[in-house]
Amino acid sequence: MINQETIVALATPSGAGAIAIIRLSGNEAISIASSVFESVSGKDIAKQKTHTIHLGHIIDNGKIYDQVLLSIFKNPHSYTGEDVVELSCHGSTFIQQQIIQLLLRKGAKMAQAGEFTLRAFLNGKLDLSQAEAVADLISSDNEASHQIAMQQMRGGFSNEIAKLREELLNFASLIELELDFAEEDVEFADRTQFAELLNRIEFVLKRLIDSFAVGNVIKNGIPVAIVGEPNVGKSTLLNALLNEERAIVSDIAGTTRDTIEDELVIEGIGFRFIDTAGIRETKDVIESIGIQKTFEKIEQAQVVLLLVDSSQLSADSLPKVKIEIEKIKNKFPIKPLVIVLNKVDVLDTEKTNHYISQLTDNQQTSENRKLITLSAKQKTGIEELKSTLLSFVNTGALRNNETIVTNTRHYDSLLKALEEITKVRFGLDQNLSSDLMAIDIRQALFHFGEITGQVSNDELLGNIFANFCIGK
Amino acid sequence: MINQETIVALATPSGAGAIAIIRLSGNEAISIASSVFESVSGKDIAKQKTHTIHLGHIIDNGKIYDQVLLSIFKNPHSYTGEDVVELSCHGSTFIQQQIIQLLLRKGAKMAQAGEFTLRAFLNGKLDLSQAEAVADLISSDNEASHQIAMQQMRGGFSNEIAKLREELLNFASLIELELDFAEEDVEFADRTQFAELLNRIEFVLKRLIDSFAVGNVIKNGIPVAIVGEPNVGKSTLLNALLNEERAIVSDIAGTTRDTIEDELVIEGIGFRFIDTAGIRETKDVIESIGIQKTFEKIEQAQVVLLLVDSSQLSADSLPKVKIEIEKIKNKFPIKPLVIVLNKVDVLDTEKTNHYISQLTDNQQTSENRKLITLSAKQKTGIEELKSTLLSFVNTGALRNNETIVTNTRHYDSLLKALEEITKVRFGLDQNLSSDLMAIDIRQALFHFGEITGQVSNDELLGNIFANFCIGK
Repeated sequence: MINQETIVALATPSGAGAIAIIRLSGNEAISIASSVFESVSGKDIAKQKTHTIHLGHIIDNGKIYDQVLLSIFKNPHSYTGEDVVELSCHGSTFIQQQIIQLLLRKGAKMAQAGEFTLRAFLNGKLDLSQAEAVADLISSDNEASHQIAMQQMRGGFSNEIAKLREELLNFASLIELELDFAEEDVEFADRTQFAELLNRIEFVLKRLIDSFAVGNVIKNGIPVAIVGEPNVGKSTLLNALLNEERAIVSDIAGTTRDTIEDELVIEGIGFRFIDTAGIRETKDVIESIGIQKTFEKIEQAQVVLLLVDSSQLSADSLPKVKIEIEKIKNKFPIKPLVIVLNKVDVLDTEKTNHYISQLTDNQQTSENRKLITLSAKQKTGIEELKSTLLSFVNTGALRNNETIVTNTRHYDSLLKALEEITKVRFGLDQNLSSDLMAIDIRQALFHFGEITGQVSNDELLGNIFANFCIGK
Repeated sequence: MINQETIVALATPSGAGAIAIIRLSGNEAISIASSVFESVSGKDIAKQKTHTIHLGHIIDNGKIYDQVLLSIFKNPHSYTGEDVVELSCHGSTFIQQQIIQLLLRKGAKMAQAGEFTLRAFLNGKLDLSQAEAVADLISSDNEASHQIAMQQMRGGFSNEIAKLREELLNFASLIELELDFAEEDVEFADRTQFAELLNRIEFVLKRLIDSFAVGNVIKNGIPVAIVGEPNVGKSTLLNALLNEERAIVSDIAGTTRDTIEDELVIEGIGFRFIDTAGIRETKDVIESIGIQKTFEKIEQAQVVLLLVDSSQLSADSLPKVKIEIEKIKNKFPIKPLVIVLNKVDVLDTEKTNHYISQLTDNQQTSENRKLITLSAKQKTGIEELKSTLLSFVNTGALRNNETIVTNTRHYDSLLKALEEITKVRFGLDQNLSSDLMAIDIRQALFHFGEITGQVSNDELLGNIFANFCIGK
């Protein structure tokens, strides 16, 4: 799969900026760069040390393209493990294009998506799960997913898998050795130690598999459905939630939030807020369709916020709200539900307490049933809502710096590995013959290897790296 | 104006990409970077040589932010002339923000727009016109404006001005010396040589001032008004013109054309096409307003394309087209006009020739009056239209690599300098006393100095650098 061509791509985001980086990697990287670079001090680039920077001009046929800084990374001390040259040029898209086109004319090939990282993997600079973490790292937009990607890129996950794989491999070779001496009925592999190893492997695999639920949530954000009639204060509440977080990024230039989707990061965990049309009873056909849609959205969400305008509560409307609560509880018995009494600033304490007792009396608030009073407009009670939302996320693993699986591919391989390990354990318990166990062990090893890339094929690699951006 | 704070900013375009560069400049750049950087090889960054690159992690309080490459540029061998550190991090906006916020906490200040280049100017790394060229270079989107900005950044323009200024300064000091010996009536400054210098200065100033017309057009694109009734094929023509140029950029990732404005680059010169509603006679009041608007747009344009659907021409419609042509010629006697007979693929040669003679017979086609037959659909005649458009642009200066003025500020200073030089010449011709001439010479020197920044003030600098992007 690896080819010997020297590849080129823009490594910085597209668009205009102060500077842009164009990256070359391959055997010809330095010679191609030399052919269009004229050092200010007259130095020969090919003779310079690795990890040095040189000021000069990109010149071809007497035409000056730009003044640039050229950085040299010599094989194997580079990201890809090949010779790499980075050109730091002025950041106009015109200059970027011109220089890339010039390098293409000089013999470089346009890089495919993820090709730099693919080469890093093929040259042994990264294992496969680390390479995948690079893409996760670039796409991570909050503290939690960033930390997980960093940990994975630094090898936390691979190391854990690789260690188990090595131990298992060790036993596998002993058991396969027994096969060679089948006639003599010897046992090279200590069955007690082996059972103990299988225990540990099962324990780790189960923990990793369990962590996927958290990992998936952290990677993609937790969907929260907001259920409520019009004018109960949905957008005011969202703004109140968003406001503080926005202040953090507002003093950094070029970092604008995309407010088209209501996404919010609370203490590093991403939440996605899904607006719904409410579920109040109606005879109108069209509105009934709306209610149907609301239930579908609740289905997809992990948490439901039922937003109630407490200033509009009355002897008349209170039962309707109770019915709404019952409906949600009946349809989604284990989904976390937060009843949010908004606009409590207009109520006196007596009334507030009355409504709280009315809305919670027929069922105790539990781990998954909370009632919160707040005023989105006055920004009171917002902190309690935030911590309630956080309480639904099992972030224990995250806080304890444990390895968390976020990648569906890894999750699948872990499940398959666990299946094989379970078979091996069954074989051990049933005293099955070594040759049968050896097959299952080899399968388990295969699935471990899939994760780190010790086992891979072109199609798999193609799928993984196609999701990378060009230039990485 | 210069302050001693260490500044930080994102230097690459905002958004996600493979990598991003964060730049620090100032006395504390290296110490601030050291405080959060842990080299993989355990090296102390402060002790490393200039122009070297180091792999390591951004770490603070035990938290790993990212794996980065750190580049060191030591004062004065950097863009700003100060100590500069560049951090090449993974290109997620989250990481960029996190690292910049960390550096701010460690004592760096957020850079103002253009502050890096302002510091480069204040530290004598660039003169003012070179600094301005940096911004032009980044915003240039075609060959011509890019080449002019490159030439200006490399000092072509400044050198020409600086040389004249020095010679004038020489004469000025001789003349001022005469003032000290006023009683003795000596002439230190050779009046003949001085007249010769004034000639040269006038010649250069006039050439530079004249070049501004070309420079302005190159920098901003040449406005071309397309006049024509609906369905004569305006958009087909624009697409035919655009098509080939698009092909050039299409194989480079991340380079998409913004097609909201119909801009087209022909041989490196930008053209902006302005669609109009046509000017055919009508009794409808609303349409008359449309015609008025068309004339306003023609007024702003530098070239007029009158597009005629030749397949719809008849004994009846031909006179109407003639009236349109006459109207444009009468209202805009010297504005270049191209009559474009579209859809000639449906005509036979006889008819085509008939129309050509009819539409040109009462006035010879001249330098500024052309008639072109083409088929936008069949893409014939497009090349002739392109070269006709180009023929209206005086690109002689560009081809001859002459200095071209594109900056309104420079243009103003050149005009003022020329005015003063004219006064000096008048004084010389009239044998005015040295003290009077000295005043005018000093004024001329002042205006020369404004261009290169030898004369500047905070307000001027503020205005210039406020237009830069942050990070440059």
